[in-house]
Amino acid sequence: MAAAAFILTDVDAGVHSDRGEILPNQALRLSGSSQWSVRWKTLRGGVSEGVQVIEIDNGRMSLSVLPTRGMGIWKGRLGDLPLEWKSPVERPVHPAFVNLQDRGGLGWLHGFNELLCRCGLAFMGPPGEDQGENLTLHGRIANLPAHRVEVQIDTTGSGAIELIGVVDECSMFGPRWRLTSTLRLQAGSNVCSITDEVTNLGGQASELSLLYHINVGRPFLEPCATYAVPCRDIAPRDARAAQGIDACYVYGAPIAGFAEQAYYHVPLADSDGWSTAVLANSSNNAAFAVHFQTRQLPAFTVWKNTIAEDDGYVTGLEPGINFPNFRAFERKHGRLPIVKPGKSYKTELVLEVVDTEVAVRKLYDRVKAIQGPNEPIVHREPVAKYSPAGTK
Amino acid sequence: MAAAAFILTDVDAGVHSDRGEILPNQALRLSGSSQWSVRWKTLRGGVSEGVQVIEIDNGRMSLSVLPTRGMGIWKGRLGDLPLEWKSPVERPVHPAFVNLQDRGGLGWLHGFNELLCRCGLAFMGPPGEDQGENLTLHGRIANLPAHRVEVQIDTTGSGAIELIGVVDECSMFGPRWRLTSTLRLQAGSNVCSITDEVTNLGGQASELSLLYHINVGRPFLEPCATYAVPCRDIAPRDARAAQGIDACYVYGAPIAGFAEQAYYHVPLADSDGWSTAVLANSSNNAAFAVHFQTRQLPAFTVWKNTIAEDDGYVTGLEPGINFPNFRAFERKHGRLPIVKPGKSYKTELVLEVVDTEVAVRKLYDRVKAIQGPNEPIVHREPVAKYSPAGTK
Amino acid sequence: MAAAAFILTDVDAGVHSDRGEILPNQALRLSGSSQWSVRWKTLRGGVSEGVQVIEIDNGRMSLSVLPTRGMGIWKGRLGDLPLEWKSPVERPVHPAFVNLQDRGGLGWLHGFNELLCRCGLAFMGPPGEDQGENLTLHGRIANLPAHRVEVQIDTTGSGAIELIGVVDECSMFGPRWRLTSTLRLQAGSNVCSITDEVTNLGGQASELSLLYHINVGRPFLEPCATYAVPCRDIAPRDARAAQGIDACYVYGAPIAGFAEQAYYHVPLADSDGWSTAVLANSSNNAAFAVHFQTRQLPAFTVWKNTIAEDDGYVTGLEPGINFPNFRAFERKHGRLPIVKPGKSYKTELVLEVVDTEVAVRKLYDRVKAIQGPNEPIVHREPVAKYSPAGTK
Repeated sequence: MAAAAFILTDVDAGVHSDRGEILPNQALRLSGSSQWSVRWKTLRGGVSEGVQVIEIDNGRMSLSVLPTRGMGIWKGRLGDLPLEWKSPVERPVHPAFVNLQDRGGLGWLHGFNELLCRCGLAFMGPPGEDQGENLTLHGRIANLPAHRVEVQIDTTGSGAIELIGVVDECSMFGPRWRLTSTLRLQAGSNVCSITDEVTNLGGQASELSLLYHINVGRPFLEPCATYAVPCRDIAPRDARAAQGIDACYVYGAPIAGFAEQAYYHVPLADSDGWSTAVLANSSNNAAFAVHFQTRQLPAFTVWKNTIAEDDGYVTGLEPGINFPNFRAFERKHGRLPIVKPGKSYKTELVLEVVDTEVAVRKLYDRVKAIQGPNEPIVHREPVAKYSPAGTK
Repeated sequence: MAAAAFILTDVDAGVHSDRGEILPNQALRLSGSSQWSVRWKTLRGGVSEGVQVIEIDNGRMSLSVLPTRGMGIWKGRLGDLPLEWKSPVERPVHPAFVNLQDRGGLGWLHGFNELLCRCGLAFMGPPGEDQGENLTLHGRIANLPAHRVEVQIDTTGSGAIELIGVVDECSMFGPRWRLTSTLRLQAGSNVCSITDEVTNLGGQASELSLLYHINVGRPFLEPCATYAVPCRDIAPRDARAAQGIDACYVYGAPIAGFAEQAYYHVPLADSDGWSTAVLANSSNNAAFAVHFQTRQLPAFTVWKNTIAEDDGYVTGLEPGINFPNFRAFERKHGRLPIVKPGKSYKTELVLEVVDTEVAVRKLYDRVKAIQGPNEPIVHREPVAKYSPAGTK
Repeated sequence: MAAAAFILTDVDAGVHSDRGEILPNQALRLSGSSQWSVRWKTLRGGVSEGVQVIEIDNGRMSLSVLPTRGMGIWKGRLGDLPLEWKSPVERPVHPAFVNLQDRGGLGWLHGFNELLCRCGLAFMGPPGEDQGENLTLHGRIANLPAHRVEVQIDTTGSGAIELIGVVDECSMFGPRWRLTSTLRLQAGSNVCSITDEVTNLGGQASELSLLYHINVGRPFLEPCATYAVPCRDIAPRDARAAQGIDACYVYGAPIAGFAEQAYYHVPLADSDGWSTAVLANSSNNAAFAVHFQTRQLPAFTVWKNTIAEDDGYVTGLEPGINFPNFRAFERKHGRLPIVKPGKSYKTELVLEVVDTEVAVRKLYDRVKAIQGPNEPIVHREPVAKYSPAGTK
């Protein structure tokens, strides 16, 4: 790779840049875009004090990444389309203001407003006690800052921008995970790939939990918006979700006090192992898609939270290694991969945003093609294998 | 208002000033004072690292406000009179060093040393579980930083300095409050007005809790100092307070190990709705008064903590929307106002400091005038309506 | 003392230096070394953001102290010998990223990687509830930053470098401790003395807990390394430690999943009150020694944690006022000194590092001399007086 590398943060080397930018110049051209940029700054004031934001713009799509919050993606934009949702938590929250123990272990919700955040790594799902450990909602990784952040400009082909962040989730007498995340935007493209490598740096084999909480609001989510994902099975998480199983693919208007619904899917993939989940607006001329490797991410959850706008009207498209159940339940059902010392678990996903009818139809056609002739098995009640509420 | 506005912090606009000052100049004169100033700095080191202090001096009275700690007032001064108390927590504490979950939910006490701090907004009072929520002592608002801070210099009339701070207390799947606090010092005056607007930004009606924990030490508090507040009822919070009901208006000398006493008052007001609580020193030549609107703040608590000097010899004059009981108790007794989506609850209070016998007498006379011919009903035991310790 | 004093931090005076150095110059010479230095910097990025590191080098030995973490010693070096261990927590962790309530009160382990850190002051040992207080592992002091830091260069004699840090552990309605720690390195020497004064600033007598968690890894710890400490009694902490009592003086190779073993000693001292604990490598040509005053520090614990390298292969030599048991147990057995208001508890210890066979033998000889003719009483089972697991 013909590339220029810029180190934004390297704790060990004493490197950290609060603010800066990388712009096209004589020596650094991408054939796919003349308007690309990488800009970073550090927010000041309020609960955002000290949060670094790195905005990568490939000339067509831009994404704002938060190294301070586990390399989550705060929000983005494709042309005029905002890639975001309106959380009641309006601004990025520095982890110092997030007490995971608050709200009976739900303190994670004090900082939740990203387009993409990771749940894991030692645990995710609801809080509780498992094997003598006190688990908090969705784990620690989204509230841990990267100790190494690097931007690489790949000038080969049409060119690409890569952001590589390294985040450690560790403790004495606890699992010791290292997340190395690579986000890649091809110049001028409408897709973004994310490749994560989660390495067990510890001396003992450990169970891994990981889910990508990808959260999308308007203009993709709106009344009569729909989602689709090729799958073998789909099951409601609980009785509440079961109420909506018949119309689960369709989204409703915002309703104050709407109680969230979650649907668990066993996704299907094409011959290369890629599956595709699509969220399309009601006019079918704008869609947000998540492509993911089903061997790496065999559990797919859709979170429907069509609550009042001011309370966070949003849906989650969530590929995961596991379902977001309590860890003990996932263990029981064999969905916690064991990673040996020194070994890694790799995941690959691609975010794609389209803004034409043709492109939306193409995505839906792809879902249908992967689905093939066999309809998914739609479980009308929670299934014991997938969720604790299941009885059989 | 003929005014100059200075933005000190605006997270969304990328504005934050670590240190600076606003001083009188040709273009900015207040007829009521030639010596006024606004100075701000950011503390460095210890648990104060990152705490911003804004000192407003109107030429006669100065107050140091802490945007980093929910716009609380750290301390002040009127001429030679210090407006403060000596907490065992000596310096302002950055919220990153306050774990509200510490000490069984009493972690708030790790950062408590202000002249004025707010308790609330989703809850206040003692910790415990209410409606599935895990409440911690006195809520979150005092440990949340303002994301917007503005100074306005009002050059009309004799002139005034205003400090406006905006603090959000929010969470996903939780109440979503915004406090907009305006502190106003008239040039050359001995009073400070505080006008707070608490807005429900969420999509559902929510219960509001709010108390102003106004804490005063020497030279106002001393042996034989007294307090007065016009009221219909006064009741001890618990058996401990009942022990002191006969002499509750009088303060004792510091006593090591003194167990705090709290008295709940139903305050009376003048025809404009204003009540007045006064703390006068033993010589009756210095007093600290709190004026407040009883329709907005119908519950008034006096906290007597005449413990050893080194443990925090202090009294609290505490106007509130509610009494500082456990939230479920306040709900049961109808003291939790419901604020609808988009609506606000407004509170007004005025701090007044006087340093002459005449002025102290005037304050006491005002209390008597409001009290009128009817003596307050003094409950010798806790009352069921006001505190959980009450039996009838 | 002919000295130059440099204030690095003084919150009250508005002084804080992020980065700097003190080097020998015409006016500042130490006859014992021409190569000494004091350098400080503030780490940026990851969980180390904002952690200050002060590296003191006396020309022979260097130590990196962390004012942000209670004046703990991160690591050091004597010539080529690293003084450190490899914790799974790789870098210094800012207290804002350590939630002591995490992991059921074991959150302290999220930040544990120092060569020397203090446990205490209001409590230490395992988490739990004692007298209505919610104790967390090893207390607060290691995660509290110093509000005053001063370097003194003593040019008398051969010269010395002193680092003085002041850390407050306080809360409203809680104990109020001030640690004043003085670390002194004689120029060109292989020893470092630490003198701590812990003062009760509060108005009531309080129980003090304090243990020096001194943690050493390779090259001192290795298979067949040994430790020695003159003692009257030695007892295993629990059944697990009892399994290794026969060979407790000898260290094993790293073993994945090795469950830690702790041994409690009642140390003996020379006629000046000094005891000496030694950790020597297998070749007996390198040793790490801790000298301590047994009247001040009458409880000595050895922590054997010969777990896999990647999980933190380490041993602790831990002089303490108490054993690291739950506080209620230490109280019951009279090991919690009561410090009256305004009074202090002083502790003195000396770290010594040697790198020759002769010097190692000399240390071992010293241990033997102090031990004298009477062998220690080796308890093969936990003893009721020393640990909760004891039955008699």
